[in-house]
Amino acid sequence: MAEGLPITFLSDYGYEDEFAGVCRAVVGQIAPDAPLIDLTHGVRRGEVRHGALALANALPFCPPGVHLAVVDPGVGTGRRPVAVTTRDEGRFLVGPDNGLLAPALERFGGAARAIDLSRSPFRLEPVSATFHGRDLFAPVAAHLALGARLDEAGEKFDPAELSALELPTPRIAANGVTAHALFADRFGNVTLDLRAGDLDGTLQRGGELRVSAPDGSFEARWARTFEEVPRGELLLYEDSAGAMALAVNGGNAAGLLDLGPDDEVELRPL
Amino acid sequence: MAEGLPITFLSDYGYEDEFAGVCRAVVGQIAPDAPLIDLTHGVRRGEVRHGALALANALPFCPPGVHLAVVDPGVGTGRRPVAVTTRDEGRFLVGPDNGLLAPALERFGGAARAIDLSRSPFRLEPVSATFHGRDLFAPVAAHLALGARLDEAGEKFDPAELSALELPTPRIAANGVTAHALFADRFGNVTLDLRAGDLDGTLQRGGELRVSAPDGSFEARWARTFEEVPRGELLLYEDSAGAMALAVNGGNAAGLLDLGPDDEVELRPL
Amino acid sequence: MAEGLPITFLSDYGYEDEFAGVCRAVVGQIAPDAPLIDLTHGVRRGEVRHGALALANALPFCPPGVHLAVVDPGVGTGRRPVAVTTRDEGRFLVGPDNGLLAPALERFGGAARAIDLSRSPFRLEPVSATFHGRDLFAPVAAHLALGARLDEAGEKFDPAELSALELPTPRIAANGVTAHALFADRFGNVTLDLRAGDLDGTLQRGGELRVSAPDGSFEARWARTFEEVPRGELLLYEDSAGAMALAVNGGNAAGLLDLGPDDEVELRPL
Repeated sequence: MAEGLPITFLSDYGYEDEFAGVCRAVVGQIAPDAPLIDLTHGVRRGEVRHGALALANALPFCPPGVHLAVVDPGVGTGRRPVAVTTRDEGRFLVGPDNGLLAPALERFGGAARAIDLSRSPFRLEPVSATFHGRDLFAPVAAHLALGARLDEAGEKFDPAELSALELPTPRIAANGVTAHALFADRFGNVTLDLRAGDLDGTLQRGGELRVSAPDGSFEARWARTFEEVPRGELLLYEDSAGAMALAVNGGNAAGLLDLGPDDEVELRPL
Repeated sequence: MAEGLPITFLSDYGYEDEFAGVCRAVVGQIAPDAPLIDLTHGVRRGEVRHGALALANALPFCPPGVHLAVVDPGVGTGRRPVAVTTRDEGRFLVGPDNGLLAPALERFGGAARAIDLSRSPFRLEPVSATFHGRDLFAPVAAHLALGARLDEAGEKFDPAELSALELPTPRIAANGVTAHALFADRFGNVTLDLRAGDLDGTLQRGGELRVSAPDGSFEARWARTFEEVPRGELLLYEDSAGAMALAVNGGNAAGLLDLGPDDEVELRPL
Repeated sequence: MAEGLPITFLSDYGYEDEFAGVCRAVVGQIAPDAPLIDLTHGVRRGEVRHGALALANALPFCPPGVHLAVVDPGVGTGRRPVAVTTRDEGRFLVGPDNGLLAPALERFGGAARAIDLSRSPFRLEPVSATFHGRDLFAPVAAHLALGARLDEAGEKFDPAELSALELPTPRIAANGVTAHALFADRFGNVTLDLRAGDLDGTLQRGGELRVSAPDGSFEARWARTFEEVPRGELLLYEDSAGAMALAVNGGNAAGLLDLGPDDEVELRPL
């Protein structure tokens, strides 16, 4: 049987270097029997929002435990390194306080308690200026998995001080919706800042619509699966995390529409 | 000691997103002590054949257990989600029935029993339209690893109905062989639809040959290792899975010959 | 509790194919309860130096055990497959003897004993000509993790015969330093063949300098963290492995300076 809480690990360390592996090794040295589940290390470099949404989408499917997340473009500067517990389920989240943890916290009722890790007794000395994943976050996560209490990890602060994540907001009108691209996945599917409920009264499941992006305008269908539209055609669908998204069957919607983060997308019924 | 059969996992979910990680987490929540071995998540997007051959090549080196495989361009449409046992060794294979599992089944004597997972009691509700890896295949694999019987996973059907994988066939003549590129690996080495035995009487180990592709014609040698030919030169060799393949020592054969899947390659003795 | 020493695994097998996964499966079949920690499989193809430095940087953070490393452009030819123990801590290193293991050995006091694995009783028969990771190195690593003695793995030889790794050496003068690019990480940060101590008397922490590369010359600052310089500006810093490195805050230093392995970089105080 596993000894220690399960630890999930998400980062933008990538796969070309040993960074994520070294963090895994640090965890393995402190908590060798705690199960370690890599969520992804392919978050786009420094894209806190991509990491934050990937983490929030993954957590409901992860066993409760310690959730280590590092997308940290401001490493070594003012941003606070933190460990937080969620109100619901008492999950531990460990990472930089730059908005990365905010949507995941929200899904679990917000933060119950928050700890500043800057001078955590669990840190590896000397703490490097640029690799807090290895020297700070991984050892804290491992000690929490082993059963350390949250307040042993550093100094308490008011969870109300935790950073939010900035997100665009869609404009919803009777004759159409102006949404924004949040990020694109490996398949070029583009997640929008919309839920299906936002479209009540504007668009209909199965209906045809016009999708206008800065770079062009295309007809599409609100479909359930990719193959409900012909190959190469655009579709609007509810993705597996419950957000509305754009895809091309067998193709790349981000490429077709030339959409980057925060770009506006107009959706109008046909 | 591990509790639960080992699970291997292969997909085209890639590494940029949390998809493969979420499946791992679902498995970890149901069968926390079953060893989980990632084979690769870098199968080319939607390329069922690449995934199928990678799986078949890997399985003889994997401990018997549950083999989860998801390359699923038709997710949510007609293709049947299945769990199958092999005649030899009683391995479990779980994935979409689109040919992905066929070569692996063949290596282990064919399918003994087959189950349709469409309404598996092990599925996570609500099942999304586009992420059956998370909602269907991963939980089924985990329950099988924990000891569930195959017929608890869904409805039986005749294994003879399982889909085959379409593959080209080489044309073998006394004065040469016309083979086809099946896929290229990360190194640009191109696997052909040929075994060494197919070349008896046509080409000789160690011998010189001419390789003609649509985009050009090159001299090559049937070598055992890359370094038996000068740097930058083409070689024909038996790859580690027993197939004939083309490589360039220190270079990229797929690039040199501009070979994509199913492209014809002529091999003639010099 | 884990049964077996922890095994770390580093290679250039990449993530697109099943190669690293198959090695993991081979280990899992022999030593199912030994923890297996992937350091990275993204070492640049055949770049022994990149792999060697990544391994040496990672090992001090890894639990003592078996360290499997495969970057093996000469597979199947003259280079010796080896298993080695370190003088300090008695770690096991397993891989090709092409310099890949040399810097890691050096960090742990050098090699105490060395074994030629060419005819190891632990190898998988038939040994392929091109995939010694699967057929030779992985099974040897797994057996060592299970408790096999080093001399059971093959034939002893004099550790003094082990290959060194060729590295450039910087030229240090009072008015400036000529260093060399060793490799760039995923973020485009370029590691140099310099330690902070090499710069005593030439450059000052916090000071301004001029960095001249073959393709251009830029002002920079010796900073502690990326954000100490404006976005898009160059900095010199001590990286998390203790080497001096060049980075661009929010950008890519390797791209800006067009630096590849062994390229010269001049650093002069301003």
